[in-house]
Amino acid sequence: MDMLWNGWGDPAKAAPLPEPVIGLLREMLGVKPREAEPPGLADIAVPGSPLEPAVLRELATAVGGEDHVRTDAETRLRHTRGKSTPDLLRIRAADVTDVPAAVVLPAGHDDVVAVLRVCAGHRLPVVPFGGGTSVVGGLAPGRQGPFVALDLRRMDQLLDIDAVSRTATLQPGLRAPHAEALLAEHGFTLGHFPQSYEWATIGGFAAARSSGQASAGYGRFDDMVLGLTLATPEGTLDVGRAPRSAAGPDLRQLVLGSEGAFGVITSVTVRLRPVPPVRRYEGWRFASFAQGGEALRRLAQDGPRPTVLRLSDETETLIGLAQPDAIGANGLPGDAGCLAIVGFEGTEEDTAHRREGAATVLTELGGTCLGAEPGERWAHGRYSAPYLRDSLLDAGAFAETLETAAFWSRIPGLYAAVRDALTATLTEAGTPPLVMCHISHVYDNGASLYFTVVSAQGEGDPVAHWTRAKHAANEAILAAGGTISHHHGVGNDHRDWYVREAGPLGVAALQAVKRRLDPDGLLNPGVLLPTD
Amino acid sequence: MDMLWNGWGDPAKAAPLPEPVIGLLREMLGVKPREAEPPGLADIAVPGSPLEPAVLRELATAVGGEDHVRTDAETRLRHTRGKSTPDLLRIRAADVTDVPAAVVLPAGHDDVVAVLRVCAGHRLPVVPFGGGTSVVGGLAPGRQGPFVALDLRRMDQLLDIDAVSRTATLQPGLRAPHAEALLAEHGFTLGHFPQSYEWATIGGFAAARSSGQASAGYGRFDDMVLGLTLATPEGTLDVGRAPRSAAGPDLRQLVLGSEGAFGVITSVTVRLRPVPPVRRYEGWRFASFAQGGEALRRLAQDGPRPTVLRLSDETETLIGLAQPDAIGANGLPGDAGCLAIVGFEGTEEDTAHRREGAATVLTELGGTCLGAEPGERWAHGRYSAPYLRDSLLDAGAFAETLETAAFWSRIPGLYAAVRDALTATLTEAGTPPLVMCHISHVYDNGASLYFTVVSAQGEGDPVAHWTRAKHAANEAILAAGGTISHHHGVGNDHRDWYVREAGPLGVAALQAVKRRLDPDGLLNPGVLLPTD
Repeated sequence: MDMLWNGWGDPAKAAPLPEPVIGLLREMLGVKPREAEPPGLADIAVPGSPLEPAVLRELATAVGGEDHVRTDAETRLRHTRGKSTPDLLRIRAADVTDVPAAVVLPAGHDDVVAVLRVCAGHRLPVVPFGGGTSVVGGLAPGRQGPFVALDLRRMDQLLDIDAVSRTATLQPGLRAPHAEALLAEHGFTLGHFPQSYEWATIGGFAAARSSGQASAGYGRFDDMVLGLTLATPEGTLDVGRAPRSAAGPDLRQLVLGSEGAFGVITSVTVRLRPVPPVRRYEGWRFASFAQGGEALRRLAQDGPRPTVLRLSDETETLIGLAQPDAIGANGLPGDAGCLAIVGFEGTEEDTAHRREGAATVLTELGGTCLGAEPGERWAHGRYSAPYLRDSLLDAGAFAETLETAAFWSRIPGLYAAVRDALTATLTEAGTPPLVMCHISHVYDNGASLYFTVVSAQGEGDPVAHWTRAKHAANEAILAAGGTISHHHGVGNDHRDWYVREAGPLGVAALQAVKRRLDPDGLLNPGVLLPTD
Repeated sequence: MDMLWNGWGDPAKAAPLPEPVIGLLREMLGVKPREAEPPGLADIAVPGSPLEPAVLRELATAVGGEDHVRTDAETRLRHTRGKSTPDLLRIRAADVTDVPAAVVLPAGHDDVVAVLRVCAGHRLPVVPFGGGTSVVGGLAPGRQGPFVALDLRRMDQLLDIDAVSRTATLQPGLRAPHAEALLAEHGFTLGHFPQSYEWATIGGFAAARSSGQASAGYGRFDDMVLGLTLATPEGTLDVGRAPRSAAGPDLRQLVLGSEGAFGVITSVTVRLRPVPPVRRYEGWRFASFAQGGEALRRLAQDGPRPTVLRLSDETETLIGLAQPDAIGANGLPGDAGCLAIVGFEGTEEDTAHRREGAATVLTELGGTCLGAEPGERWAHGRYSAPYLRDSLLDAGAFAETLETAAFWSRIPGLYAAVRDALTATLTEAGTPPLVMCHISHVYDNGASLYFTVVSAQGEGDPVAHWTRAKHAANEAILAAGGTISHHHGVGNDHRDWYVREAGPLGVAALQAVKRRLDPDGLLNPGVLLPTD
């Protein structure tokens, strides 16, 4: 099944907003119903592919037949940009500036190498395409002219499993649920559950240095990767002979996060864990975000470490309550405070022990256990936020998310700075927003902050309207000592701030690598690094 | 205090071998007493510094005075090569081919930048020098002509500590015990205890991607590093704004393991842990290396994870027993089997819980607990092996170590291949060796093997004699799927095998980085990467 072309996920799972919520949006935020129905897929005019038939024939030869080179309008539209709110607004406005010239579907590593050779011969940029879930402009090569979208969906095999070492080698086009199903046959799990889980791919996780909701227990995706194969225009790079090594810089960590700019990831060797027999998620209430943040820090630093650990600020906690089916359901009083989700996965004995230890710490630090209900509701709805965004857009509202991370001592200042930047910019633009936040991932030394913004769309171009606020948030992040992205990545959208974060010499080092692996600059141009 | 110039450590801690052990070496291995006393420091003829006075004056200006530019024979000899056995054999043979032209002592980052500028102006190679403990030829720039040793000992400050985030920023010249003492004043520890602990420096740990004996609990040094500053001829690179990020490749992991070839590390921000109130080490006996290896794998994969976890093979266990003060002391019967050290550090409650859980697993898998005595003896002697090596060399024997790592399923084959390669090569050369091994570090997905070789020195050049065996071991490691080094690094000695491990494109990517940061190729030439 294909993802909804102008929104998120499986159209059958759409969750329209109840009328009372729409009423609230209109009253509180001044959201106006949209003026016209957006165009249907068939209504959008897509110019014919600019590629010569001879080029298309060469590409077809590279991937084993013309069935695997698509130039029809629908396929090309379905590979246009990713799933940020600006991406959705643009496609709903029938903006086809970023449509690929062709969608090419390789069956394996050798096909990818052959495609890169053809593209090098014609100076044709290549954008690797996994699940298409980028929310940072990772799939739009900065208006560089015609380009090929390299859709990896045919590369969806479990290539190898080593039960003794607990490793598996996976192809990049495997979607996460499919990968989990294949590993579960052997009793294993990756433990990687980002919000994009249902659609994102193994290659995308690696290319974008993804982090999942259970990272406190299982680590980030970059912690899980033991080996990678990268096809580049200059040949193949294979990295990872041992779990850890002192033999030079860790080349795995140079490929992870390279976002298709250095090459196409054609296999990923990952660490496995046994499927946990027990999964238990609970809600905890704290009086304030600051109080809850201290409790999360304590657990992250001194343990026992839960598998899932998150904390919503006051606004996000309240808005969670504003959902009609949730009001009053989780035992939170009117003064909701801040809701934390604390989850444990593992054996019965291990989860019981950690849960008991964590409960002692959380209680000591002011937390009140709300039992399993809020935890189970979180687990049930953990992949549903992007559907909710579609419904908000349908209702004429604007909704988007952004995220960052910093060391613990900087978290309070970073939180205030980003929230204030978003609030001030959008209020000044006439659309005072709701800004919500949660601590989404915790580490010994810091945490990630994940912001959600909901407002009216404002007058004029909604993308430009948001862009001002987004840029203000980016500036606030850099000024307050945060990283420009903790798990969404860089893409086109964060590139100019990433360049400042990495510094001129850091960027120069990465550009040197890119020039060596991709001398013609054909791989995802403008993504991650500036074009020369 | 300076390290012993032609051996290891503090001369006052020398531990001469008892006569019965020397007797055993002669009987078992054919070790012959050395024919002549090696030269004293003052006996070695060192040519005068080839640097022009004008250059020396420029260097003195860069580091704040001529006191900090040394050209005397003793200082230069003390900065000649590192502490591998070939290094010791060469210096004991008065081989001064690798003596630096000058030893320069910068006081801080700006001094380092200034030194690099002077050296660039004169095309003078620079070798960063921390504790001087490299055992892979990391301090000898491959006979490239005159070079400067950049001794970082004056850069020994704790620059910053953040008790909330549990981070500290350290200067690179801090020796580990000094760093631990400074951190202990704040209640913290790094938890990094490699065998070189007493002499190695923070900068060296980072540059060489070091791993300590408590890595099962505290992680490797590359796990501990949150930020780095690198001074290069092209400017300064600052990396690490957050504990983790999705903003591009992890540049920290490009600097870690760069062995001075990309720049000089001038500060390191590290993760801290509270000083553990409890440290408890125990011995366990297994019938065989294979049986014990399975038990270690189980603990590494399913926990509870000890802080220290090591396992000696049958030979190493037996030889441990052959030390007179140990015979019969640890309750092992004549058929010693294999000794594991299992250690726990942390709070009373946490260590008790993990110890109990681990004991259940180890017992289930065939282990017998030997109590605290072997553990305490290990802890007491954990930094003494290099002293023992000096005594073996003094007695006319040859002794050296090497190490590798691989995924668990490859460990048995790797163990046999390396042991057999060393045994066959040295036996064929007329010096049948004792080859001992232990699993020194464990991970979810694999482990490190650490080999110790003792034999007679053979006829002729002892370095050439060993080099044949070492090369055979390197070939065996690559063929059996291991990495050429798990914690010693690449240096000059492993470079040609590292090039094969990283592959042509991996090496090309790193060379591209080097050319960008060090366009004249002046930084540690020949170390890590081939010179062009």
